[in-house]
Amino acid sequence: MQKKDNVSMSVIRRLPRYYRFLSELCRRGETRVSSKELSEKMGFTASQIRQDFNCFGGFGQQGYGYNVPQLCAEIERILGIQQLHKCVLIGAGNLGKAIVGHMPFVQLGFELIGVFDNSKRVIGGKISGHEVLSYESIASFFESHHPVMAILCVPREAVETISDELYALGIKAFWNFSHYDITLKHPDAIVENVHMNDSMMTLCYRLSLEE
Amino acid sequence: MQKKDNVSMSVIRRLPRYYRFLSELCRRGETRVSSKELSEKMGFTASQIRQDFNCFGGFGQQGYGYNVPQLCAEIERILGIQQLHKCVLIGAGNLGKAIVGHMPFVQLGFELIGVFDNSKRVIGGKISGHEVLSYESIASFFESHHPVMAILCVPREAVETISDELYALGIKAFWNFSHYDITLKHPDAIVENVHMNDSMMTLCYRLSLEE
Repeated sequence: MQKKDNVSMSVIRRLPRYYRFLSELCRRGETRVSSKELSEKMGFTASQIRQDFNCFGGFGQQGYGYNVPQLCAEIERILGIQQLHKCVLIGAGNLGKAIVGHMPFVQLGFELIGVFDNSKRVIGGKISGHEVLSYESIASFFESHHPVMAILCVPREAVETISDELYALGIKAFWNFSHYDITLKHPDAIVENVHMNDSMMTLCYRLSLEE
Repeated sequence: MQKKDNVSMSVIRRLPRYYRFLSELCRRGETRVSSKELSEKMGFTASQIRQDFNCFGGFGQQGYGYNVPQLCAEIERILGIQQLHKCVLIGAGNLGKAIVGHMPFVQLGFELIGVFDNSKRVIGGKISGHEVLSYESIASFFESHHPVMAILCVPREAVETISDELYALGIKAFWNFSHYDITLKHPDAIVENVHMNDSMMTLCYRLSLEE
């Protein structure tokens, strides 16, 4: 399978899910899986699964199924998670702390190399083994460490300024938890948004519809 | 505008975003906005915006723009967030704590009425004013309080059992942070997944593609 840069975002967004399912099969020692079995376990159609894999050149043989460890390794390679990208986290509040403590960075292709905040209350303290550094020192930190991704756990009113500053310092990608669209000002930035409020409102809508 | 139950999920998922943008315009005292202005602020095309609003019967007059407070109130009504749905949170670890402390439940249509865990280390303690209750007491709690939504911040290995139990107790909707597909066993459950690992892997993929 090959990386291609014209694969649609909806296919790309399914890759981590394939990877999770296949990793679990791998851990259980399963060696072969058909697109039909994958489809039953994952809730996609078998044809969808074959189409998705075909985007990367496909693998497996018709009627024979996929080799689990090989498929898993291929998707891991496509995702690029075997190579660690340096990242920093900005904002060591409740959410920032949860992310530092909760996310298996290395398994997801990242190395967390710095946690920053601007509040004297938290600077110098430790969260899950990471010392909280002063946001004022971030420019010199970037000069020596060159992170490429920033996790933004900052309040809505701070995110525009901070994303501008980080972009100017060379950050290429943002994992953004605030409700601000970074790509409007920086269309070439790679941004993944986790909009928890929107997700909860969508849930509310769907619940209201049932009532 | 009317609620319709045949509106596509992609339109529904944009509603919270419209709501956020319009609420901000409202707070700034703006009274009128065109689909062109909305499109510049939000990064959707004006035609997309008009189409989305038309799914609910449309509003506004051609060439005259939308009345901001009215549009905002309409979308609020469609989202159903003015009526509070009772919810519980299961799993008072790092992530659970962050959600209890971070999410503006009432603004999003929910009332958090109970936080549960099965660890003696946290039961009886408080997080952001909520006492952590024993998961063992959940059936009797449900009998008297009737929550309709559960936030799942439990480990992967616990989520199948817990979601089965909560579903049997009458939970209709899940806000799910674990990597387990609840709808495979309970196709009528309303589920919103926040797959943070997948989001981070997608970011990794897109970064790798650039390198």
